[in-house]
Amino acid sequence: MSRSPSRNTGLSKSRRRFLQLSAALSSALVACRPSSPLPKEQQSFLGGPVSNYGTRSPLERARRTFRNSLSRENASSRTPLHELEGMITPASLHFERHHAGVPAIDSTTHELLIHGLVNRPMIFTMDELKRFPSHSQIHFVECSGNGGTHWRQVPDVSVQNLHGLTSCSEWTGVRLSVLLGQTGLQKGATWLVAEGADACKMARSIPMEKALDDVMVAYAQNGEALRPEQGYPIRLFVPGWEGNIHVKWLRRLKIVDQPYMTKDETSKYTDILADGKARQFSFMMDAKSLITRPSGGMTLSGPGYQEVTGIAWSGRGKITHVEISTDAGTTWQDAALQDPVLPIAHTRFRYGWNWTGESTVLQSRCTDETGYVQPTRHALIAARGLSYYHYNGIQSWAIHSDGSVHNVHL
Amino acid sequence: MSRSPSRNTGLSKSRRRFLQLSAALSSALVACRPSSPLPKEQQSFLGGPVSNYGTRSPLERARRTFRNSLSRENASSRTPLHELEGMITPASLHFERHHAGVPAIDSTTHELLIHGLVNRPMIFTMDELKRFPSHSQIHFVECSGNGGTHWRQVPDVSVQNLHGLTSCSEWTGVRLSVLLGQTGLQKGATWLVAEGADACKMARSIPMEKALDDVMVAYAQNGEALRPEQGYPIRLFVPGWEGNIHVKWLRRLKIVDQPYMTKDETSKYTDILADGKARQFSFMMDAKSLITRPSGGMTLSGPGYQEVTGIAWSGRGKITHVEISTDAGTTWQDAALQDPVLPIAHTRFRYGWNWTGESTVLQSRCTDETGYVQPTRHALIAARGLSYYHYNGIQSWAIHSDGSVHNVHL
Repeated sequence: MSRSPSRNTGLSKSRRRFLQLSAALSSALVACRPSSPLPKEQQSFLGGPVSNYGTRSPLERARRTFRNSLSRENASSRTPLHELEGMITPASLHFERHHAGVPAIDSTTHELLIHGLVNRPMIFTMDELKRFPSHSQIHFVECSGNGGTHWRQVPDVSVQNLHGLTSCSEWTGVRLSVLLGQTGLQKGATWLVAEGADACKMARSIPMEKALDDVMVAYAQNGEALRPEQGYPIRLFVPGWEGNIHVKWLRRLKIVDQPYMTKDETSKYTDILADGKARQFSFMMDAKSLITRPSGGMTLSGPGYQEVTGIAWSGRGKITHVEISTDAGTTWQDAALQDPVLPIAHTRFRYGWNWTGESTVLQSRCTDETGYVQPTRHALIAARGLSYYHYNGIQSWAIHSDGSVHNVHL
Repeated sequence: MSRSPSRNTGLSKSRRRFLQLSAALSSALVACRPSSPLPKEQQSFLGGPVSNYGTRSPLERARRTFRNSLSRENASSRTPLHELEGMITPASLHFERHHAGVPAIDSTTHELLIHGLVNRPMIFTMDELKRFPSHSQIHFVECSGNGGTHWRQVPDVSVQNLHGLTSCSEWTGVRLSVLLGQTGLQKGATWLVAEGADACKMARSIPMEKALDDVMVAYAQNGEALRPEQGYPIRLFVPGWEGNIHVKWLRRLKIVDQPYMTKDETSKYTDILADGKARQFSFMMDAKSLITRPSGGMTLSGPGYQEVTGIAWSGRGKITHVEISTDAGTTWQDAALQDPVLPIAHTRFRYGWNWTGESTVLQSRCTDETGYVQPTRHALIAARGLSYYHYNGIQSWAIHSDGSVHNVHL
């Protein structure tokens, strides 16, 4: 039932790719020493044993960062986007945002209540939730405050500290429509209020149409149980909408006939417009892209080939294009998108660039499947005024002639 | 730039799905208590702070298992497939197979040598490897010994202990064709030998056609650096081929004109046929599927709705169908495949089953895009004789009337 290896691929196709790549890279790369002694590393003794649960190399230090503040419980930590590859964020490096710290919840006693305008109020244990049909999806979560410093400031910091409140994982749980099918819905059931089990009772109002469409009560991330900082044992998952509404440590869904104007959707998470009115509700996370390498704080090793890579995503569906400018927005070229391009997920893009050694500005600009094009900072401010949330303007990285990379506004 | 939530989804579509699901599940599920007091869990004090690198809840105990043996350095550990969701295996739970333990390699000094039938022998540091164009792909790795007990024995154990030598992650690295484009290839360069930096110098021969097609020198798994037990800082990644050839702790690629018949491809990893001859090389991992819940060692809580779920994969490309039999192979029904269905990746399948409470046998059978259909154990043995490697027969789980689940051969 196995075929010989020579029949697995067409020789001509492989050879063709090989020749194309060789020509493209040619001498653009750093010169690797053309010598042939054996490399240094060779163990001559037994290594470590197999283990139950792995840990990373002690040499690896990629970490979430957070600002010093009076309270590390009402705080956020940021994903090291510049150190990550591909599309998946490992759970240990997924950004955090807590309003009253991470509660230590016992999954064997935790329960989810669904009540209000339902025919049958119900309480579900974790075992009961897991008996329902499950569903998995690779999706990003982004805090609507991500990149918010760009509205008013230009700090010369890393992409992690500017934009690290977005991460992408595979989430598994039960569709909320399935649970509401059990409770039934009464007339007028047009919204629900989701409440967390943390001390501040984080609560958000969600329209019933979204709830019945693709909202999930998630209990797993990247294959294993949710991490405590991601809502263990359950969180709401609301694809494409701002992170705060994905209520963590979910304990209650009250079915209601209007938004409840909770503290978490009035004192926060509304967008104050120029005339002092607040834009509400701004649930959707619009399309955004970031070059993560090279990015702020890095230094290019010298002129020549540089891979320009980053991520693009949209709450409205799939990314269709990412364009790169290496001349401060004068001209744009298409970046390659890594398959699979998934809806409402980080999409890895890459672009091969030959740096001349002169100072310039790098930018990325994405388009999603609705035709929405990521705006410049100027266009965004012209449309919205100076806001606090939902910053998705084009990110500009200045490359100085010494190779150093800096956050700038054009 | 944000639209009102009511325009994001069609009401009719959401309502239709809601009604369909309600009807399908109706009373098949366990009765959840129809009461409405608030659930017990509610924190009234601050929880834990944000952190640099997360860890799972101390209540979660999913773990890799391994047999007690004289040596935990020449050993394997198995992924808890029955406790995982979706398609991604977190790095901490990816199966292991080591022949001389896990070497502790310093990524700042580790080097990769490419020599032999090349125009320019070269040595690459990690920094140098990372300057080349990168590539990411979600792929499974499966040890060709996975499920091997099925050839001769029927141990009444879990799916983890029977089949846990397969895992699926997003891998990132540089295509080998890119590196060979730098060294150039001389005439007669038809194979290469990949050698690891572990004490046993694990080494395998790989045909050049495969090397130039889709083989990668991988340095990242699920976004972050490879874990030590997965080859830190680099491993070969050979999509769809048996796990052993994905040489970990990669230190050397010698370009040659024939397979080198290393100890690791002669004393092991060949298939002894009935007449005493060995089948070599059996690189490809054929299509296979497993029901992971319910599975061996579990007990169904009672008659009624049961989600039957598991994974299917093929080294030859995408899975196109998974069929489920709940009557010992007499009739078959299509399972739903979770999007995205990716080539050479675990594909999550699900099937809703109403268990009557009578004893029966559950099976899954997959088909890949080449039209290959997973064989029964009898058909596999008829084709191959009794082997040690490459077992991919249909897995049968006997359900006893007490709800207990057991490994059986039909």
